[in-house]
Amino acid sequence: MFEATKVGRSLDKADFKDQQEDLRTQLLAVQRELRQTDIPVVVIICGVEAAGKGEVVNRLNEWLDTRGLQNFAYWDETDEERERPRYWRFWRSLPERGNISILFGGWYQTPIEQRFQGQCKDAELDAELNRIVEFERMLIQDGALVVKFWYHLSEKDQRARLKELSRDDKSRWKMVPDKKSKFKEHYQDFECIAERVILHTDRGTTPWYLIEAENRRYRDMTSGKTLLHAIKTRLSEPLPEEPPSTAGGGTLNLPTGSGSQITVLDQLDMTQKLARDVYKSELKRLQEEVNELTWQAYNQKRSTVLVFEGVDAGGKGGAIRRITAGIDARLYRTISVAAPTDEEKAHHYLWRFWRHIPRAGYLTIYDRSWYGRVLVERVEGFATDAEWQRSYSEINRFEEQLAESGAIVLKFWLQVSSEEQLRRFQDREATPYKRYKITDEDWRNREQWPAYKAAINEMVARTSTAHAAWTLVEGDDKPFARIKVLSTLCETLKKALKEGKNGNGRTRPCGEKAVAADSRKERNN
Amino acid sequence: MFEATKVGRSLDKADFKDQQEDLRTQLLAVQRELRQTDIPVVVIICGVEAAGKGEVVNRLNEWLDTRGLQNFAYWDETDEERERPRYWRFWRSLPERGNISILFGGWYQTPIEQRFQGQCKDAELDAELNRIVEFERMLIQDGALVVKFWYHLSEKDQRARLKELSRDDKSRWKMVPDKKSKFKEHYQDFECIAERVILHTDRGTTPWYLIEAENRRYRDMTSGKTLLHAIKTRLSEPLPEEPPSTAGGGTLNLPTGSGSQITVLDQLDMTQKLARDVYKSELKRLQEEVNELTWQAYNQKRSTVLVFEGVDAGGKGGAIRRITAGIDARLYRTISVAAPTDEEKAHHYLWRFWRHIPRAGYLTIYDRSWYGRVLVERVEGFATDAEWQRSYSEINRFEEQLAESGAIVLKFWLQVSSEEQLRRFQDREATPYKRYKITDEDWRNREQWPAYKAAINEMVARTSTAHAAWTLVEGDDKPFARIKVLSTLCETLKKALKEGKNGNGRTRPCGEKAVAADSRKERNN
Repeated sequence: MFEATKVGRSLDKADFKDQQEDLRTQLLAVQRELRQTDIPVVVIICGVEAAGKGEVVNRLNEWLDTRGLQNFAYWDETDEERERPRYWRFWRSLPERGNISILFGGWYQTPIEQRFQGQCKDAELDAELNRIVEFERMLIQDGALVVKFWYHLSEKDQRARLKELSRDDKSRWKMVPDKKSKFKEHYQDFECIAERVILHTDRGTTPWYLIEAENRRYRDMTSGKTLLHAIKTRLSEPLPEEPPSTAGGGTLNLPTGSGSQITVLDQLDMTQKLARDVYKSELKRLQEEVNELTWQAYNQKRSTVLVFEGVDAGGKGGAIRRITAGIDARLYRTISVAAPTDEEKAHHYLWRFWRHIPRAGYLTIYDRSWYGRVLVERVEGFATDAEWQRSYSEINRFEEQLAESGAIVLKFWLQVSSEEQLRRFQDREATPYKRYKITDEDWRNREQWPAYKAAINEMVARTSTAHAAWTLVEGDDKPFARIKVLSTLCETLKKALKEGKNGNGRTRPCGEKAVAADSRKERNN
Repeated sequence: MFEATKVGRSLDKADFKDQQEDLRTQLLAVQRELRQTDIPVVVIICGVEAAGKGEVVNRLNEWLDTRGLQNFAYWDETDEERERPRYWRFWRSLPERGNISILFGGWYQTPIEQRFQGQCKDAELDAELNRIVEFERMLIQDGALVVKFWYHLSEKDQRARLKELSRDDKSRWKMVPDKKSKFKEHYQDFECIAERVILHTDRGTTPWYLIEAENRRYRDMTSGKTLLHAIKTRLSEPLPEEPPSTAGGGTLNLPTGSGSQITVLDQLDMTQKLARDVYKSELKRLQEEVNELTWQAYNQKRSTVLVFEGVDAGGKGGAIRRITAGIDARLYRTISVAAPTDEEKAHHYLWRFWRHIPRAGYLTIYDRSWYGRVLVERVEGFATDAEWQRSYSEINRFEEQLAESGAIVLKFWLQVSSEEQLRRFQDREATPYKRYKITDEDWRNREQWPAYKAAINEMVARTSTAHAAWTLVEGDDKPFARIKVLSTLCETLKKALKEGKNGNGRTRPCGEKAVAADSRKERNN
């Protein structure tokens, strides 16, 4: 595959100068145009050691307007990053709409390094590459442009370039063999892995651009022109409409007839009740238990993510307060999801939830969540069909990553019967200090009940997974509902903590942890 | 002082229940009202060990609406925090306007602990308290309400409470003596320090509320009522207008007559030039040097903050590009300051700059900066007189903290003569790809020149400090200006790195580092 990058292309000084002026002008123009759109641009810079990736990035920074342009490298994973799912650091560096982020290595760096260092097998690498394909597809579907560069050198050129670098090894990465004698072997190994990665992740919408890096002027000019062309093309051609039918991505077939449809909600026994005195003693016991368990989780560095969704007046707030009353306030955060800020609107809809993911040992409670996408946004038409349909799998991938990082994920749906909801609405209207809780919107939502019912049913069916199951809570009797929530939480925490999976030692497909420690040591030498 | 907190106040169960209903209603109402204002509310929770600070916070969380309410504790300093100025973590937790943040210990925790553990003397503690007074004044002037609670127990009560706690020591802090025999002595020592802290920082606008913590119901009810009262009062009484004359806070007298006024800018020799060939060779040499030096800074964990300000068409962008071309793109970030986002607008004007402060070892370049406050905002009247006048000292404190954390701070003012500016404006209008860089606003700013001149003069006079000096750059000749910027940067870096102050071992008035390490160890037991 890499033959095409070893033909010795070059550009002489005069030509470079000539072309540079024009290229810069065009890049600036296209960047200005980009700024008016809702397209975030992600540029990924990969390649063999000593190809001059840093130089290319510097050149792009010189040519482009630094407004709306950021560079990100993934050295020095901080503990804030280490204590969260692996992709948290990438979410942090995704550009706002209209802006450009240049990522050194991006999500490719770790898998390649680990495979090269023998820390994982091809099969594990492939699994990770599948995840990358899905992640990039998600970005593309959100309107992003992803431009991926691979810089390559022939064996001879790389040898020469490394020699040149040797007097100043600070900018070197760790893809170079220790012993000179093994150079050829290492070169071929690395090329072989690179080929696997590129072929696997080279999709129509996120192609790789292979660039011959021997001649610096050719390398930079080609990079600039390729980027220019990619942005121009994206600006002129809107994304093709997705075929709506396959967007869900699942094989799950749900009955779609409305009206007489029977949903998971119909199977709830809404008559369940709890006596006042039982409630009181249970509440006390469970709050003490949850206190104990959250401290255990803190010590084990396991984080917890709780999601609360439910019908209006379903009792979410009350249930959350009964939990937090038991937990040391230093350990949890409650995120009440309201209208997104403009920074949030400038990103993928999951971004605003990623930013609040708890560190290892801590707990985040989402009062409403990313499920808004498949509930209110679906029913009210704020999201297109394609958008909410594909979000089931986006959400599953998101929660999978949470679980993989050692987080304990619980999701509660608080259901009340239509009659009970009506009663609560009327009560709110009649009680001065509750009146603010009821709006015209709540009454409107009530009329939409059949549509919500179908949405809820599909949500539960599509997103109840082994690592992040839904608990449906029969909410007509508040004491019953609260105790069900608390006891489910306690049971799940107890079970998870007993298994003793350490949150800090998050499972990584390729054992990244060891590498990260190594590389840190090396760099500090 | 604490006698008043040892009189045995209490509240019986029935009274508590009675009052609670009413208090909750009022708190929710006042919180809704607050949300419509631009007042951020900071609640600080301090007190003796075992007073039940966590319980109070839980209670407030139960009573208040969690929307717009966040709790922050300052355990577990992360490396992202440790590698930045000490107050970075507090800036991270300041509430948006209309919201409430509850801070455990807040900025008081560390100074009190360190004094108690003998890591600093009274004089150092006082110096830190002075800083706190200024910091709180700054928040108040920005419209914040700061409510500070101190929870106290008599010696007897504390002893009893600690006994109660002993079977579950996880929530205990470290203010308790190791040996029982020393309890009395420790109790008195701590009380003595607490008194010093409270008396020193109890100002009219940020009073301390001392609350007797023996009876839990009394403690919680009093906290809730006090908070309610404080917010209500703040909502009904707008802040008094500041006397404008003393707002600058300095003793510096500058001539204020306009027109014939001679400023620092008049002393620049704008005729300085650099020959093309000298420029080229110097540029190459300095870029190599800056590359070397920034790697040294990375290894020494020293961060660098560069500020670029200057007249329109002063050549900021060009100068910045000549620097970044020399630096590995993984080490720096350029922040181009444009209109603030709504999240930024919801905070103190310095917040948006705090969020981009580099980690130890890295470099942030601000293309325009916090000085906008005393330049464009002053001249155009976007900030009130009181606002921009007090910002000189706010800025000085900010930069002092940067320097204290080990950061190297450099500020460049790029000046061009009026004739040269006109020439550049005309050139921009004539050149297709430069045309976007010139707007009507630039022409308007040009007419404001005398006003800007006075503003610049005052800015340089008031904010050129030993730890963050201004470098005025004669910018009519671009090569000259760029070389001056680069060589100043290299000289400053060289000098600072030679002194070898380690950025990671930021100077702390009371040696906080050691404590942090200790406490982490303890907590993980």
